[in-house]
Amino acid sequence: MNKQLIEGQEKSFISSNPQQKKQKSRSMGEQVNSYPNKLPQTNLAPKSTILNTNTNKDKKVKITFLGGVGEIGKNMTAFEYGNEIIIVDCGMTFPDNDLPGIDVVIPDISYLIANKHKVKAIILTHGHEDHIGSLPFVLNEIKATIYGSRLTLALVENKMKEFSKVKYKAIAVKPKNLLKIGNFSIEFIKVNHSIAGALAVCINTPAGNIIHTGDFKIDFAPIDGSITDITRFGELGKKGVSLLMCESTNVCRKGYSMSESNVGKVLEEVAFKQHPTKRLIIATFASNIHRLQQILNLSQKYKRKVAFTGRSMINVSEVAMKVGELTYDKKNIIDVEKISKYADSELVIISTGSQGEPMSALTRMASDNFKNIKIGENDTIVLSASPIPGNEKNVYNVINRLYKKGAEVIYDELADVHVSGHACQEEIKAIHALTKPKFFVPIHGEYRHMKVHKELAMKLGMEERHIIIPDIGMQLELTPNNLKKTGFTKAGMRLVDGMTLGDTESNVLNDRKQLSEDGFCVVILTISGTTSELVSEPFVITRGVVYNYEADVIVRELKSNLSVFIKSYDFKEMELSLLKNEIRKFVSNFIYKRTKRRPITLAMVMMV
Amino acid sequence: MNKQLIEGQEKSFISSNPQQKKQKSRSMGEQVNSYPNKLPQTNLAPKSTILNTNTNKDKKVKITFLGGVGEIGKNMTAFEYGNEIIIVDCGMTFPDNDLPGIDVVIPDISYLIANKHKVKAIILTHGHEDHIGSLPFVLNEIKATIYGSRLTLALVENKMKEFSKVKYKAIAVKPKNLLKIGNFSIEFIKVNHSIAGALAVCINTPAGNIIHTGDFKIDFAPIDGSITDITRFGELGKKGVSLLMCESTNVCRKGYSMSESNVGKVLEEVAFKQHPTKRLIIATFASNIHRLQQILNLSQKYKRKVAFTGRSMINVSEVAMKVGELTYDKKNIIDVEKISKYADSELVIISTGSQGEPMSALTRMASDNFKNIKIGENDTIVLSASPIPGNEKNVYNVINRLYKKGAEVIYDELADVHVSGHACQEEIKAIHALTKPKFFVPIHGEYRHMKVHKELAMKLGMEERHIIIPDIGMQLELTPNNLKKTGFTKAGMRLVDGMTLGDTESNVLNDRKQLSEDGFCVVILTISGTTSELVSEPFVITRGVVYNYEADVIVRELKSNLSVFIKSYDFKEMELSLLKNEIRKFVSNFIYKRTKRRPITLAMVMMV
Repeated sequence: MNKQLIEGQEKSFISSNPQQKKQKSRSMGEQVNSYPNKLPQTNLAPKSTILNTNTNKDKKVKITFLGGVGEIGKNMTAFEYGNEIIIVDCGMTFPDNDLPGIDVVIPDISYLIANKHKVKAIILTHGHEDHIGSLPFVLNEIKATIYGSRLTLALVENKMKEFSKVKYKAIAVKPKNLLKIGNFSIEFIKVNHSIAGALAVCINTPAGNIIHTGDFKIDFAPIDGSITDITRFGELGKKGVSLLMCESTNVCRKGYSMSESNVGKVLEEVAFKQHPTKRLIIATFASNIHRLQQILNLSQKYKRKVAFTGRSMINVSEVAMKVGELTYDKKNIIDVEKISKYADSELVIISTGSQGEPMSALTRMASDNFKNIKIGENDTIVLSASPIPGNEKNVYNVINRLYKKGAEVIYDELADVHVSGHACQEEIKAIHALTKPKFFVPIHGEYRHMKVHKELAMKLGMEERHIIIPDIGMQLELTPNNLKKTGFTKAGMRLVDGMTLGDTESNVLNDRKQLSEDGFCVVILTISGTTSELVSEPFVITRGVVYNYEADVIVRELKSNLSVFIKSYDFKEMELSLLKNEIRKFVSNFIYKRTKRRPITLAMVMMV
Repeated sequence: MNKQLIEGQEKSFISSNPQQKKQKSRSMGEQVNSYPNKLPQTNLAPKSTILNTNTNKDKKVKITFLGGVGEIGKNMTAFEYGNEIIIVDCGMTFPDNDLPGIDVVIPDISYLIANKHKVKAIILTHGHEDHIGSLPFVLNEIKATIYGSRLTLALVENKMKEFSKVKYKAIAVKPKNLLKIGNFSIEFIKVNHSIAGALAVCINTPAGNIIHTGDFKIDFAPIDGSITDITRFGELGKKGVSLLMCESTNVCRKGYSMSESNVGKVLEEVAFKQHPTKRLIIATFASNIHRLQQILNLSQKYKRKVAFTGRSMINVSEVAMKVGELTYDKKNIIDVEKISKYADSELVIISTGSQGEPMSALTRMASDNFKNIKIGENDTIVLSASPIPGNEKNVYNVINRLYKKGAEVIYDELADVHVSGHACQEEIKAIHALTKPKFFVPIHGEYRHMKVHKELAMKLGMEERHIIIPDIGMQLELTPNNLKKTGFTKAGMRLVDGMTLGDTESNVLNDRKQLSEDGFCVVILTISGTTSELVSEPFVITRGVVYNYEADVIVRELKSNLSVFIKSYDFKEMELSLLKNEIRKFVSNFIYKRTKRRPITLAMVMMV
């Protein structure tokens, strides 16, 4: 299959895979090819188009949770009817500290691989890594056409550049578009989120309508002028929603999330107005296109040139510009290498590093390790982001270093320079109230979030038996009158470690943990086969165990004790493996007694 | 010197060290021995008692910052006049992730060791680890009498049990006590904090009064009925405060901190009232005595028995009871082993683990790994604490697991079940306004906190040149008319790693980091000295590098490639070390090419 990203509706798409072609002509309605405006704006595909001779009882939609439940990250859910599977989202997550050396974590898709002939489509709600990040791996294993907004697909394209061997087909969709895939028809619904081009989906199935919100908030003053389509949610609610699957990230927060436009006002006040003579450096998430748009607008208003720094910031801003999500006068953008031609008061630098990422632009600036920017007293730096849990120490380290260089630093503790992209309780309640679902499944959250979300739904009047808290691998069955748990399939984490996949069954990760605490020690003894005595001095190597100042003494002592040990030991009758083990224990105990450290210890014996 | 903890004023103390005896009789006023109530309640030692024939210019007090500035943790400051040094606090800190395998971090006290003959006293403001935790190490190196509140000293005693070789002398003090040590006289001032027995100090020196707040908040409804002595701060302000050293932990938070008593009200509502039939499990910091007191009071009110669980909870509650900071009817306390004799509705379990610490009682309960308590649907669990930055993931893991067991879980995101022990902006402003210091030095905070604190002081009218932001190792000189920076002395971190001290100069920590990411690989080749050929198959050991499923193939390939490499290599003329290095590089590159991992690689060559 050719890699083919449809960037606009005018492009046709080519498939070199006959199977795929067949599938396409069989399963995709005209609608998608002719979007955006020729479609009926609000109608789902009429039920009569769904060829289904089953009785109600046989109208079973199977839902398989492959990620994003019981965790924040690697969102992935499969919807299955007969011989058709459509997947919503395909995310990755970053490893916790208990997975040392692991690069990223992706969903275990054994279930999809076993049913790969059924998989028809991957629908992406938006372009964040926890919704698209597994694509390079998943597309290596299953074939499916990708659907998402233009920005989402442009970010996918950008990501797939590094995996040029993986071929795929992608089709851009817009809010109100209707997509027919076999017995499913999918309607896309505009939602606000901390990335542009975010979509919820309503999946019309033989068992009823399923709404999957993706990640969303309700922003009544959005930057792109277009609010979460609560009217459509309400209309669908009137028609009848069988199952609501709603995200839960911020369900513990009372009230409403603040509007993104509020951040612009605060940035104007605390940065542009209050620091007219300073150079402004604003760090934020590259994917927060509306944040970038506001900074660009303010820069124009205050007659400052803008330079983007950091690889992802440069990439994403270009991508967003290409698809029209970011608009600005190009003559106001300058290359970061040219900032020296401008006065500080004429500059805004938009940078990566709002999470204190070690190699990011802002972190390197803070460490005097960034070619074109040297931080000083004439800099006002805004971290327009909140630290993601786990990143606090890195973020505050960067802030402290910037302060020490004399810069002014403004961050979320000091001013409202960031808002969340996720709905708080009142917004979540609105979606429940509008869609009036028969059944409810909280998604995208740790267990605690889904639990609170369940309680929220019950407070709104839903019966407990109509709510299921999902878990990874759980499978549900939706029929027109019922939603029930049917069991579990193999699912969970796959660990990407360099070029191959890691696992938790091997000792690798436990070894790494022990090594990170206490290092390792290798002892090699050469013993005469005839006299059973040491032929030469024991050979000892340690790494990560003893500090320089103590190494000489400890190693010397170990060697001499080992010699004594060997002499005293009657090992002539002993098997070599047993002897090795005795030596290993001796060395390990010696080191522990001297240092209270327990390095991984290996003993080797050469018989000569 | 004998270890001797004075638990009440009635006890006398014995010193077997004549030097110390001499010092005692020379430097300690009668006041301390006869406290608490015979002292003038508010007067400092009259200036006339200070024998000082220096001119104003020579009245120099040197202040050395050994910890707690530019960081949260390991608080330690030395005040020096002539041949006398008094130390305020002696804390430790926990290592960041970039110090793998390090147990705790303590201050580098090279300066004190070099001046150990001058050191007279260590004054402890309160009993938190970041104020007392280095004592076992520091007292091994310098001799000094310890002063602190009874609870503080009881916690010190408890801590020192594990270091029985370290002898020390401790003297309990109370608010309003006056302590004369050579040219210093020290007044203790009651402050509210998240531990009972917290004290600020006013150090009267020949160069003027120095107020060191310790950690504090202003709680107008404290549990012990005794508020931060703002009157005394005001009186000292009227008399004249030369230098204020004020903590900065919460200086970024606007407004006031909530009263500790508020937590009691919330706990009563969300736990005791709303869950009358449930077993209540409340996790909090063991040292938060007033929190424990409130839970005990509520338990009594609602006729529930209390069981303490977790080693530190049992220890600290006993210690606090012994010194009278915790009062309750003993017949309401039961052993955790006996809880099965009571109905769930008759029980409150007070537990450690509010930070999700892996081995704590609550974490073990959440993992079904706690002998006497099995969590179920009839449990309501309160985490009466906020996650300390860095602990979030552990805390939320525990919460999720408790929820999954069917328990009700209440934590800070859901209800106000915790308050901070540190002053917010308005409280900090109050201290500045009351003490009206000539000079100001923010302490106990990261640089960002101290920077914001400096700006706060300037907003209150202080001139910038009267404020110095300290750094670790910085030395200041206070004279009656001036405060200035005089330079830096050696100071910083000492890393406790098992039984010895680590350092960052050795490669140990970097090696551990690399090992934790990619493991290690050892290759041993036995080569014939005559033919220069491999005598046997190469020997390869890896740990933390390759997963079981890939190990066979990769190791086999490596071995055969190594054999080819050796054959093709002309090393007869080569030095052994050079050959080893070539082999090491070959192996490292092979592994990287196959896995994208870079283990620490060692090559050994045996010539036979």
